[in-house]
Amino acid sequence: MDISAVNALPYEDFVNLFGNVVEKCPLVAAAVWTKRPFVSLSLLEAAINEFIDALPEAGKEGILRCHPDLAGRDLQSGTLSPDSREEQARAGMDALSSAEASRVARLNEEYKQRFGFPFVICVRLNDKANIVRELSERCLNTRAAESARGIEEVKKILRLRLQALVLPDAPHKL
Amino acid sequence: MDISAVNALPYEDFVNLFGNVVEKCPLVAAAVWTKRPFVSLSLLEAAINEFIDALPEAGKEGILRCHPDLAGRDLQSGTLSPDSREEQARAGMDALSSAEASRVARLNEEYKQRFGFPFVICVRLNDKANIVRELSERCLNTRAAESARGIEEVKKILRLRLQALVLPDAPHKL
Repeated sequence: MDISAVNALPYEDFVNLFGNVVEKCPLVAAAVWTKRPFVSLSLLEAAINEFIDALPEAGKEGILRCHPDLAGRDLQSGTLSPDSREEQARAGMDALSSAEASRVARLNEEYKQRFGFPFVICVRLNDKANIVRELSERCLNTRAAESARGIEEVKKILRLRLQALVLPDAPHKL
Repeated sequence: MDISAVNALPYEDFVNLFGNVVEKCPLVAAAVWTKRPFVSLSLLEAAINEFIDALPEAGKEGILRCHPDLAGRDLQSGTLSPDSREEQARAGMDALSSAEASRVARLNEEYKQRFGFPFVICVRLNDKANIVRELSERCLNTRAAESARGIEEVKKILRLRLQALVLPDAPHKL
């Protein structure tokens, strides 16, 4: 689908298509529909980022809280969103050794206890070792730093999810 | 559950419990968890309303766009949220005559074409005749008036959904 086809979508189809580019937050896509038409995929992405940036701090934390734990309960019980399932599997988070799984579960709990939201990372841009190291290191940050960092990761995730749904922008003619 | 039990919930349980008090917008409950503890159910409700009020206009329209049509496709195909299904059935929206169903479908389309979001009404506070009359009359409003009116209805719906989940506040001692 190219951006002109996106611009022609009624809101229901738009929300169905883009409702999970921010995990479990169809409200974000539903809000951004108001801003159509989009000149390019980049500007659709920018509109989504702008909506997120305009949320109060609690709203940003709310976005993080809509994310599942990495290698957590939802992965084990098969209740991840299809997007998350594919992303976590691709990074090998569904095939941790028993020792790795215990370590990740312990670090996830520590992180959530400390910050009141889950550890969010764009798993497509990281391998398993890197993810576990980040989880361990980011537990030591401040809450404000982690909220900001989590939202940065949300933006990386939504960029890749958008790119899987919309054809790339044509290069500018010279 | 009373308000002190609500205040003791980890965010995951809080979002599971209250994630649909605003239809398909778990982000709202997930954001409001930041504001706990809540002294009373009324103040939990106030925190949710405050979060909604602070959204930009596009965000309010986004909330409306997360709602299904009344007596629409989701009702017919069984894909309504359990909350909506029960509410629509109680108002008799699942048992329209063929003529009523056609009229509602036509008015829903007219409304959505005009405003870019669906007609939202607290069906628990209205009977079938009243709902159809409101749908017909509200089609004539301005977009700004209907966005504001839709959000008022969202607040009535969330109040009743909250009351179904949390025990009422104790009356003040004299």
